[in-house]
Amino acid sequence: MGRRLFKELERSYGFDEVAIVPGQVTINPELTSTKMTIGDLDFEIPIMASAMDGAVSPGFASYMHEMGGLGVLNAEGLYSRYEDPYSVLEEIISHPQETVTEFLQKVYSEPIREELIGQRVREIKNTGATCAVSFTPQNTKRMSPAAVEAGADMVVVQSTVTTARHMSNSYRGLVFSELIDALKVPVIVGNCVTYEVALELMETGIDGLLVGVGPGAACTTREVVGVGVPQVTATLQCAAAREDYFRRTGRYVSVITDGGFRTGGDICKAMVSGADGVMLGTPFAQANEAPGQGFNWGMANPHPELPRGTRISVGTKGSLKEILYGPTSKTDGTQNFVGALRVMMGMCGAYTIRDLHKAEMVIAPSIKTEGKFFQMSR
Amino acid sequence: MGRRLFKELERSYGFDEVAIVPGQVTINPELTSTKMTIGDLDFEIPIMASAMDGAVSPGFASYMHEMGGLGVLNAEGLYSRYEDPYSVLEEIISHPQETVTEFLQKVYSEPIREELIGQRVREIKNTGATCAVSFTPQNTKRMSPAAVEAGADMVVVQSTVTTARHMSNSYRGLVFSELIDALKVPVIVGNCVTYEVALELMETGIDGLLVGVGPGAACTTREVVGVGVPQVTATLQCAAAREDYFRRTGRYVSVITDGGFRTGGDICKAMVSGADGVMLGTPFAQANEAPGQGFNWGMANPHPELPRGTRISVGTKGSLKEILYGPTSKTDGTQNFVGALRVMMGMCGAYTIRDLHKAEMVIAPSIKTEGKFFQMSR
Amino acid sequence: MGRRLFKELERSYGFDEVAIVPGQVTINPELTSTKMTIGDLDFEIPIMASAMDGAVSPGFASYMHEMGGLGVLNAEGLYSRYEDPYSVLEEIISHPQETVTEFLQKVYSEPIREELIGQRVREIKNTGATCAVSFTPQNTKRMSPAAVEAGADMVVVQSTVTTARHMSNSYRGLVFSELIDALKVPVIVGNCVTYEVALELMETGIDGLLVGVGPGAACTTREVVGVGVPQVTATLQCAAAREDYFRRTGRYVSVITDGGFRTGGDICKAMVSGADGVMLGTPFAQANEAPGQGFNWGMANPHPELPRGTRISVGTKGSLKEILYGPTSKTDGTQNFVGALRVMMGMCGAYTIRDLHKAEMVIAPSIKTEGKFFQMSR
Amino acid sequence: MGRRLFKELERSYGFDEVAIVPGQVTINPELTSTKMTIGDLDFEIPIMASAMDGAVSPGFASYMHEMGGLGVLNAEGLYSRYEDPYSVLEEIISHPQETVTEFLQKVYSEPIREELIGQRVREIKNTGATCAVSFTPQNTKRMSPAAVEAGADMVVVQSTVTTARHMSNSYRGLVFSELIDALKVPVIVGNCVTYEVALELMETGIDGLLVGVGPGAACTTREVVGVGVPQVTATLQCAAAREDYFRRTGRYVSVITDGGFRTGGDICKAMVSGADGVMLGTPFAQANEAPGQGFNWGMANPHPELPRGTRISVGTKGSLKEILYGPTSKTDGTQNFVGALRVMMGMCGAYTIRDLHKAEMVIAPSIKTEGKFFQMSR
Repeated sequence: MGRRLFKELERSYGFDEVAIVPGQVTINPELTSTKMTIGDLDFEIPIMASAMDGAVSPGFASYMHEMGGLGVLNAEGLYSRYEDPYSVLEEIISHPQETVTEFLQKVYSEPIREELIGQRVREIKNTGATCAVSFTPQNTKRMSPAAVEAGADMVVVQSTVTTARHMSNSYRGLVFSELIDALKVPVIVGNCVTYEVALELMETGIDGLLVGVGPGAACTTREVVGVGVPQVTATLQCAAAREDYFRRTGRYVSVITDGGFRTGGDICKAMVSGADGVMLGTPFAQANEAPGQGFNWGMANPHPELPRGTRISVGTKGSLKEILYGPTSKTDGTQNFVGALRVMMGMCGAYTIRDLHKAEMVIAPSIKTEGKFFQMSR
Repeated sequence: MGRRLFKELERSYGFDEVAIVPGQVTINPELTSTKMTIGDLDFEIPIMASAMDGAVSPGFASYMHEMGGLGVLNAEGLYSRYEDPYSVLEEIISHPQETVTEFLQKVYSEPIREELIGQRVREIKNTGATCAVSFTPQNTKRMSPAAVEAGADMVVVQSTVTTARHMSNSYRGLVFSELIDALKVPVIVGNCVTYEVALELMETGIDGLLVGVGPGAACTTREVVGVGVPQVTATLQCAAAREDYFRRTGRYVSVITDGGFRTGGDICKAMVSGADGVMLGTPFAQANEAPGQGFNWGMANPHPELPRGTRISVGTKGSLKEILYGPTSKTDGTQNFVGALRVMMGMCGAYTIRDLHKAEMVIAPSIKTEGKFFQMSR
Repeated sequence: MGRRLFKELERSYGFDEVAIVPGQVTINPELTSTKMTIGDLDFEIPIMASAMDGAVSPGFASYMHEMGGLGVLNAEGLYSRYEDPYSVLEEIISHPQETVTEFLQKVYSEPIREELIGQRVREIKNTGATCAVSFTPQNTKRMSPAAVEAGADMVVVQSTVTTARHMSNSYRGLVFSELIDALKVPVIVGNCVTYEVALELMETGIDGLLVGVGPGAACTTREVVGVGVPQVTATLQCAAAREDYFRRTGRYVSVITDGGFRTGGDICKAMVSGADGVMLGTPFAQANEAPGQGFNWGMANPHPELPRGTRISVGTKGSLKEILYGPTSKTDGTQNFVGALRVMMGMCGAYTIRDLHKAEMVIAPSIKTEGKFFQMSR
Repeated sequence: MGRRLFKELERSYGFDEVAIVPGQVTINPELTSTKMTIGDLDFEIPIMASAMDGAVSPGFASYMHEMGGLGVLNAEGLYSRYEDPYSVLEEIISHPQETVTEFLQKVYSEPIREELIGQRVREIKNTGATCAVSFTPQNTKRMSPAAVEAGADMVVVQSTVTTARHMSNSYRGLVFSELIDALKVPVIVGNCVTYEVALELMETGIDGLLVGVGPGAACTTREVVGVGVPQVTATLQCAAAREDYFRRTGRYVSVITDGGFRTGGDICKAMVSGADGVMLGTPFAQANEAPGQGFNWGMANPHPELPRGTRISVGTKGSLKEILYGPTSKTDGTQNFVGALRVMMGMCGAYTIRDLHKAEMVIAPSIKTEGKFFQMSR
């Protein structure tokens, strides 16, 4: 057996399969800095909210700014298709589960109204917040300049799988270097999962890279088309590209792991895997302030012919402040993400995120295999 | 430990344990071609329906042809044992589960009526469809010439495990090279799972090879006799044989992965593993048009002394057209297989199936280990 | 991490983790021979019933002989502690589960009556059956000669872990070479799981070796003391010792894998791992003819201070004949073990068990990971 | 894939994933010695009870001494915060689960009263027992001298992750070498999980090392901050450090695996991994004599901002004597830990714990994958 195989397969790893190894020196959490920089923009915490309609509304983007992070608005979602997106949200939320995908397909077939994009950007900017908006590659060239003109501070170009070279008959592939020259604001591009694509995208001049295909709670890309690389391995590869690119050019491109997070522990693992920041959807959709009011759905869900994802009931777990900073009495890792990050940095002896990149991880059996003997009391 | 072991064991992999890595270039799905060729026969899609009585009737074979694929009729099943197989199907379907294996054993002890084989072939040909019929090795030499005479375009020789050299006292082993010379239509042979057997079978002159021992939903070969190789590893081995054989002889033998598929993602993984086509039983038994009306059973199930398999209730999931081409609102990967294949080919930058063979896969934890935190809403 | 570890750990494998690879040649099952030889005794099938009181009574040993196999009577169990063991069996079977271990401890604290051993041996011999009796190492020297005198054809010396060198203050360790010289009947010894111990035991002159520590359904040795090696790896090691010993001395010592079997597939895997025979407890306790009437318990269960095992309800699955030879309508691998073995030998192209030792296996994910998508119909 | 990864990951192992290999020689359990030495203190059994308030009260420490082991009192827990800790225990135990973490946070915000520490030490010493008390690194320098003055025989310095070099603004990091010089009693420090930290801590002059981050039943460090190394790998690393340090200096530092134990088998595996002793929380909280009366909670649980752990209902399983020495009728490994250890030592041919360190282990699939076929009878 195996003497002859058509190709070799290497093992990849997800958050549940690894654990962080404490460092040789420990420091007090209050000595740590969690700062993140993307292009010329600085953030107090390395945490972004995904451009999912159930997670980020203009209002939520403003809250994220107050908390030191960044909420990305989906420029092709409900907020730019409907004058009054909030009543549509209500309808989605109250729709029965059996037919919700059909309903989402219908709701998202309404055309994007470009004037609404500018309006939403201005809503965010009026609160004083940093404004980031996301487009798909097909629409970025046409739609993003107006968003920047309206005040957007960052453009995110995002699809399930993005490469520097996309072939199409119906539209000319987006040339990232041209886009970056034209926009004059930081550009983040994704998603990708391999060293080669990460490197090629960095060479186009982007400021940040989104990492992750198929890992999110609201995404079924792996079931439907079989494609996906678990987040730890994907981040390890893209971070290696960042280091090689930085060594060669002196330019540092931020790597942002996007999707698949459940707990503060998962965020910590992404950072140790080499991420400069993380982007979360469902954990923010669980905030009291989230527009989805306890529901979330993936942006590949409403695909008219091959929907990948579903509306999931995520519940509400607390205020955005509690989720990010605590204090908390929850012991399952779903609150106080920043506190968790600082405690972990202390355990690893890391003053900064760059220090943290030197920490070690091991492949470890899922938590369930130890300590499962005793039942929680009711 | 391990200093001395009687033999070495290598790891093998199934669909659930791998994931496809997106390519360095992406292309729009409409640019992809899913064509498959077996001998001198071309097919629009690389998808075949298994010679299982619950999946393929003469009528279903005709539907498969309309859809661009191929349905293989079991020439030793109900359709050639009974003048009126449809009433027998009704009886099987309505039989209580506890005693259904006994009932199947009885139903399949009825002798094969060779004149019925020709009749079924003509039924298929009369609809204008390509006609493929399957025989066991014991009966192929005697029964297949009449099927070809009646118009069959392809002969499939299939048993649980088939090799180029079979030893028996009761009949002379089938000599594939003689068969191929005699029949003058493409011959597909299977099933096998290793490089060596694949190569040896290809050297007999066959046009296609069926890959897979023990993986199907309706098969319990691994429980009953312990034999089986998971489909990804089996396909990787047989595809390696195809490449080596092709390099040496210039003749290309199609590799068809047969069994164990649940989702479009699984089909995609088989193709990336090196398959030129796939053969599915249960997913087609779930079509509205399937003769089994929501039930399926393996062809090793009615074995009189050592049945391996069972009748399973697979339900009906939609029309054959929806299953193959969508559009769908199902997000679990069980509909729009061709759409899934095209989307995946786009993500891997593959214009053709041969291009797709260059795509990468990783060993990845089962999907359940990521994103399982949130419950579906009711 | 891992730069410095106190010791290295190698991976070991159990039945559920491997699968047999079909051979390059296939043969018809009726051409296969399943003969097993231990010392000067020949058996039609390589299957033994364990010396467990719920599985083998004198009557059951006689049935096993009729079927071509061998049932081993526990010479230190109920049959040699009680004049009327059958009423005690009734009490064990009807005892409530919560306190059954205490009850077993009490029942087995009754002293062994040596005269009853001879009586049970004669009961078996009077039926014309081959008679094998098992002793613990402590009692073998004292008790086994009388058993042989009464007609026993084989002596089995068995404890959870047996080595050629046992240290004790309370009794002089059993010297196997002396025992073998004294008894003049074939001696089987066990259990062991490593190459070194297997080799050392073979060098004492034994005729057969029992392989397996901790795998049985009725055994909790791995929970209680953490000791055990999964059966595939254990068999691979002991078979390697047999081959090396055979090459050096020309004497062939049979390796018998003992415990942990659930299906015919498991038996097949043990044989391909290098076993010459298998010993089963629970599957025989499920025979209609078994004394346990649907219950079984391990022989380490009644240990007065550290019981390891429990009484389990195994149910009755059919007659001994059905379990061994079918025909069956069960498709879960629990009936027709000999049929399964022959079919598998055919798939591997093996005429004899020695041929079968050349077959290949792969490490494969548990069956549950493929084909689990569809529910059985009720 | 994998051509470039930001860092390499090695596999680590927990108790459930390994099994002990029987030795080449076996000895009778009554010949084994389970003695443990820490500094100048000797213990009959290598088993300590953790400094958890639900497990060790002054009374329980005295019972542990009678049994030949050692119970460590948490010098910063309820016993030194409350004059009457027993009524507080009652309140914790009767508090509803939903809000118990908040309640624990409140209860543990009461200040430590240093005079109570001395009082508790004297309570223990008055019973004639060896007295060990545990402090966090922040408080050790200030509070431990009084405890020693009151008669404490051993000081344990313990936090989730402890290194020889801790950086803080608010207090000067504890210098272990100074502490050891000052106290004149054996000092145990922990917890750590890596070779490097273990070695560095040993070089400060400590007498014992606690091994384990994140494995306990009452601990959720891995969920909350992602940090932890499974106990087998952690012990293998720290034991390697002990050996290297011993070889270089001639001084033997005891390695004590702390946390994650469920069964006697787990204890056995820790010892074979290289531990000189084990420290258990939950299994002792299950003793009839435990102050938690069937409940237990981790010492990181009441953290005011980022609680890690929870109060779990562990039930009561028997007397401390039964848990340690049996006899038992439980067959799940939760009673007669010392009996299990001796039986296992016998199977491995180990007269002493140091002998046992030479025994082998294998990586083995979890017990559930063998023998799971049969249901326990009700």
